[in-house]
Amino acid sequence: MLNVEIITIGDELLIGQVIDTNSAWMATELNKVGLDVRYKTTVGDNEADILDAFDRAFSRASIILVTGGIGPTKDDITQKTLCKYFDTRLVFDETILQTIENVFAGLSKTLNELTRRQAYVPEKAVVIQNQMGTAPITWFERAGKILVSMPGVPYEMKWAMTTEIIPRLQEYFTISDAIRHQTFWVKNYTESLLAMCLEEFENELPAHIKLAYLPTSGLIRLRLTGRSADAESLAFEMAGQREKLLALLDGNVVSENEESPELILDKILKQNGLTLSVAESCTGGKLASLFTAIPGCSQYFKGGVVSYSNDAKSDILNVNLWDINQYGAVSCEVAEQMVRGAQNIFHSDCAIATTGIAGPDGGTPEKPVGTVWIAVAYRDLIVSRKFQFSKNRENNILRACNNGLAILMELLQD
Amino acid sequence: MLNVEIITIGDELLIGQVIDTNSAWMATELNKVGLDVRYKTTVGDNEADILDAFDRAFSRASIILVTGGIGPTKDDITQKTLCKYFDTRLVFDETILQTIENVFAGLSKTLNELTRRQAYVPEKAVVIQNQMGTAPITWFERAGKILVSMPGVPYEMKWAMTTEIIPRLQEYFTISDAIRHQTFWVKNYTESLLAMCLEEFENELPAHIKLAYLPTSGLIRLRLTGRSADAESLAFEMAGQREKLLALLDGNVVSENEESPELILDKILKQNGLTLSVAESCTGGKLASLFTAIPGCSQYFKGGVVSYSNDAKSDILNVNLWDINQYGAVSCEVAEQMVRGAQNIFHSDCAIATTGIAGPDGGTPEKPVGTVWIAVAYRDLIVSRKFQFSKNRENNILRACNNGLAILMELLQD
Repeated sequence: MLNVEIITIGDELLIGQVIDTNSAWMATELNKVGLDVRYKTTVGDNEADILDAFDRAFSRASIILVTGGIGPTKDDITQKTLCKYFDTRLVFDETILQTIENVFAGLSKTLNELTRRQAYVPEKAVVIQNQMGTAPITWFERAGKILVSMPGVPYEMKWAMTTEIIPRLQEYFTISDAIRHQTFWVKNYTESLLAMCLEEFENELPAHIKLAYLPTSGLIRLRLTGRSADAESLAFEMAGQREKLLALLDGNVVSENEESPELILDKILKQNGLTLSVAESCTGGKLASLFTAIPGCSQYFKGGVVSYSNDAKSDILNVNLWDINQYGAVSCEVAEQMVRGAQNIFHSDCAIATTGIAGPDGGTPEKPVGTVWIAVAYRDLIVSRKFQFSKNRENNILRACNNGLAILMELLQD
Repeated sequence: MLNVEIITIGDELLIGQVIDTNSAWMATELNKVGLDVRYKTTVGDNEADILDAFDRAFSRASIILVTGGIGPTKDDITQKTLCKYFDTRLVFDETILQTIENVFAGLSKTLNELTRRQAYVPEKAVVIQNQMGTAPITWFERAGKILVSMPGVPYEMKWAMTTEIIPRLQEYFTISDAIRHQTFWVKNYTESLLAMCLEEFENELPAHIKLAYLPTSGLIRLRLTGRSADAESLAFEMAGQREKLLALLDGNVVSENEESPELILDKILKQNGLTLSVAESCTGGKLASLFTAIPGCSQYFKGGVVSYSNDAKSDILNVNLWDINQYGAVSCEVAEQMVRGAQNIFHSDCAIATTGIAGPDGGTPEKPVGTVWIAVAYRDLIVSRKFQFSKNRENNILRACNNGLAILMELLQD
């Protein structure tokens, strides 16, 4: 079986100033073509540690994907270290200089000496032109194993993986195993309650099909992963297991889509020509940002109001101040008036409103930290629910967002 | 020198369904007390790979911090594997059951069989009570080296690290080296231009002081890191290097605060009793969410409008529709009317407005993808600037946010 190891290089990853979002994305893309990431290693900009990581990786993986450390600055030593490891030297590559100059022209910047240095690449490497930036992508082969070095800049890495590296890997290796994933978004369960209810099911699973629990804030994502050389029979088996699971979960599966709730709604809203707006108190803009991160969302997303003060709730969303004083800002009445307010001022078919005590402060005996009211409207329909989340602010914000999305999914799927 | 290795365990990390934000946070906290993370390793819920990672870590690190794989579900095998590695067995711990029951009482959930199982812990381990969840934290000692296993749930891990693990590590080890960090937020430079301008400075740095480039979207974060057994002379040296650097960067340092721009502004706004609101088009709620993620922001953050449509811009923010048609939604005129609109409807001292073409679509020859207008207001003062960012949506959103924050910092610091 082909093992993949991802090696991320950079002091910034070890002193904690950069969060590695790359490797998760890479793993997802590799999975789609039947490749498994088995190890992830992070080392600093330190020659000995990088060489050691290379050795280790070649001893246990067939595909080694290296990100980072190839910028123009002095602290980036990956290129030099690659030369040392593969016993080669840096040579000047005219075509790369061309690409770099084109990229810079596109960004209307001036090419400088330091950037020009990026046109020097390891002689033994197959060089892949980087169309998104200046750092060259290099492909090394050793004893039937492949090491690829690419930039750590996320959108450069994503471009390189999608358009160049994955296709070349598929060409180079015959990927025999088929991988099938089946995701289930489950509501109304805690992780441990769900695990109890599925214990028997899990024990009866064949060895080549695995069940994973992925608690996202507010919903639990279950994932069945099967792998086999026989894609057809695997598909058949997976379908059977899916049926079993759906029966056990009995109506609590919000979606079977692999994608995030907001991406699922993105499709539903577009398909049905519906528009959406949000009114956010405790989620503070997070809910809007989930949709506006999606290209083309302006087709249905009209906008949102972050009403962090009572004045804002009444002035902009026309929430009745008397009700705010009577029932409190965190109440069914206010949540429902917020969602109607959003629908009205944005003229949208659907709306989601959140109001709650995110914490860590602001809790009361009647309304402790984690108390959240969510109201969701679809045309005249309106659903509002009270939730009691955690003591953690970040967690409460995410759970409020995901539950708002889940309620809208239910409304639109009925 | 004491090396720290972080081992994160979980299939979800290898199939890319969870992004590891823990290790970056851990590294930052460890740095503060003079501990360096030198290696990060991720393996799946696979006994052989976990044992192998433990062996490797003990061979090269003195402190091994393990997160994940200790949940109540079947796919979590870290506890069992720890027993195998340290040649011990799981025993029932009454006090842990108590803690778990208390936690659950606090969350008004019902304790179930599977959760009760979490009260079984490795006999040889020192057990640390987890006050935030049900998964026990275990501390192992071998030949003067320490391995600690903790939950992967971020807020449980953060609680454990801050209140228990780091203090115990400081007690157990005599941490001789002092580490000093000095951060500089730099505007108006590309990474490579900055590197050229600082090349000489960097070459002249003593071996125990390093310069790192941390390009965050929109601003470049420079970090001087010095380490030495002699804290006093190090502080003196660092001060000298800081002076040199400030002279070289000549007015382009937006802040020297270690923290993120929004946290820096959080303090400035609170100290000066100023209020803030936002009007977001291309940043789509992201800017608001940066502030509302900060506990206590309601003290100054009044709210925001995500005006994703022209109607919203005119209806809610009172932007002149004629101007939108005349100059376009992405224009200085509209940005400035948006920022004034936010100030007015939220009655705030300060406001930030963004309008741009985030991409990937929607660009024109005159206004290509990445064109963004940002307007920032402080009382009567108003500053608006045009930016040309990248072709990448995510990147453009973040750069627009950070540049908006940077402009407000300048305004408030003058």
